[in-house]
Amino acid sequence: MSLVVVGSVGLDDIQTPLGSVQSALGGSAVYASMAARNFTTPHIIGVVGSDFPSQHIQMLNSHGINLEGFQVKEGSTFRWSGKYEDLNHAISLLTDLGVFGEFDPLIPQNCLCCRSLLLGNIHPALQLKVLQQINSYHFVGCDTMNYWITGEKHLLAEVLKKVDIIFMNEAEVKQFTGQKDIFGAAEDLLKLGAKIIVVKRGEYGAVAIGEDFYFFAPAYPVRKVIDPTGAGDCFAGGFMGYLATQDQLCRQTVKNAVLYGTVMAAINVSAFSIKNLIGIDRELVDANYNQLLSWI
Amino acid sequence: MSLVVVGSVGLDDIQTPLGSVQSALGGSAVYASMAARNFTTPHIIGVVGSDFPSQHIQMLNSHGINLEGFQVKEGSTFRWSGKYEDLNHAISLLTDLGVFGEFDPLIPQNCLCCRSLLLGNIHPALQLKVLQQINSYHFVGCDTMNYWITGEKHLLAEVLKKVDIIFMNEAEVKQFTGQKDIFGAAEDLLKLGAKIIVVKRGEYGAVAIGEDFYFFAPAYPVRKVIDPTGAGDCFAGGFMGYLATQDQLCRQTVKNAVLYGTVMAAINVSAFSIKNLIGIDRELVDANYNQLLSWI
Repeated sequence: MSLVVVGSVGLDDIQTPLGSVQSALGGSAVYASMAARNFTTPHIIGVVGSDFPSQHIQMLNSHGINLEGFQVKEGSTFRWSGKYEDLNHAISLLTDLGVFGEFDPLIPQNCLCCRSLLLGNIHPALQLKVLQQINSYHFVGCDTMNYWITGEKHLLAEVLKKVDIIFMNEAEVKQFTGQKDIFGAAEDLLKLGAKIIVVKRGEYGAVAIGEDFYFFAPAYPVRKVIDPTGAGDCFAGGFMGYLATQDQLCRQTVKNAVLYGTVMAAINVSAFSIKNLIGIDRELVDANYNQLLSWI
Repeated sequence: MSLVVVGSVGLDDIQTPLGSVQSALGGSAVYASMAARNFTTPHIIGVVGSDFPSQHIQMLNSHGINLEGFQVKEGSTFRWSGKYEDLNHAISLLTDLGVFGEFDPLIPQNCLCCRSLLLGNIHPALQLKVLQQINSYHFVGCDTMNYWITGEKHLLAEVLKKVDIIFMNEAEVKQFTGQKDIFGAAEDLLKLGAKIIVVKRGEYGAVAIGEDFYFFAPAYPVRKVIDPTGAGDCFAGGFMGYLATQDQLCRQTVKNAVLYGTVMAAINVSAFSIKNLIGIDRELVDANYNQLLSWI
């Protein structure tokens, strides 16, 4: 029932119209794991520098996140600084990779038989390297971004051929396939071999597209978005975390996974950094899930 | 079980990326009635000039649309010419009101006890004039557009206070209320007295917002949009046509009405003018409704 999450772990400076934080815990693997832990045991595969505050390690541990694949290297932790003038677009002000620039994702022996794998948004070459280490995962999901579609499309295509679920936003599926609509784009992506394409549409929700079904989910209405950072990671983490507890990739399972991903993203964007993901439990998540279900 | 539809009847020249038509039958009352006829008997209250082709009258009649409130006046029929460079925005090239400029909507005696009323997108003063003639309608819906919000906001507010259902798109609810999100905007509109606000979001579907519920509907995926003209009118016509057959404005009824409106809009945009609304029947509409229902 466990989930391996490969991705970045970092410290973020974030400005939004509603405030700012400095050196806040972030990174795709952190957001995804903090969302997934409500469903299963996440194992973070990531790297930080020797400057990484120990209280973050303690917090992750105390929230049931397995850190056997968490590397601490001499040097500085990945840092990102960004601001949002409107809440739909992040403007990167600074990206300092630090030890993440030499990240070598190694899956610990006891994770080689984990249930599921989420390849967070990292270089496709690293995603491929992870895929080469595993052989018997039940479900593999992959996140990515426009940067890799532009710069590493061929490598990314190699990754996408080997995964079950692809997470992309509308612009990304169109950019990757050259199609004008998401349905045509999803058909092309399904032909690569993936079983489910999840197209994220921001405030308009998400669409999961399989070989023989669609599922349209609304976004959870958040009246006051504080910080959108990590929304996509929390979506993927909630989706894959729920999926790790399931046997079949059928429409009903995918529907639930999309709704849980949606709920986790909404909880996350209602506060800075991962603040809202701390201390919550499955009961609260399920209450929001049932609320969302009542609106469709 | 009948529905009175007040609105424009016109002849349209339309160019889209996929072709063009000249002097095609159009107008909000025509689109809405051709959608509503699948559920109930629509009565068009409208006006055309003496140049209006008689075959259109025959077509409307043969499709079960009551024309007792259909006025034919000396002069020219309302003409609109527009083009779409992308399919989300119409560019008006010409608007010639003709006899529609003097439209005086009179509800025939036998329509004063019709079940429901759809106030199509016309001058709010005319919408008010219609409302003054009726007294016992079960459900009243109102469509409008940014033009009236900009130019006749006070009059439009008078209309909105007297109706049950308001149809607006996202930009319109925000413009009318000054709110930044559709949920805050809908709260303001509900305070005016309406029971349901239907916020149309184009390719992202629609949200119906009541005092104590939301319903989020996706758009019906149309792989090849040929002509978006009349999509909003068909949505409102399908919604109000279905509603005219129902007793209660509860969540389940509103959900069905939104889905039927969505289906009618999708059928309409798959061909020029009203071409796809001709000759279809409830069986086809219900098949599409069930398909849409299976995707949420």
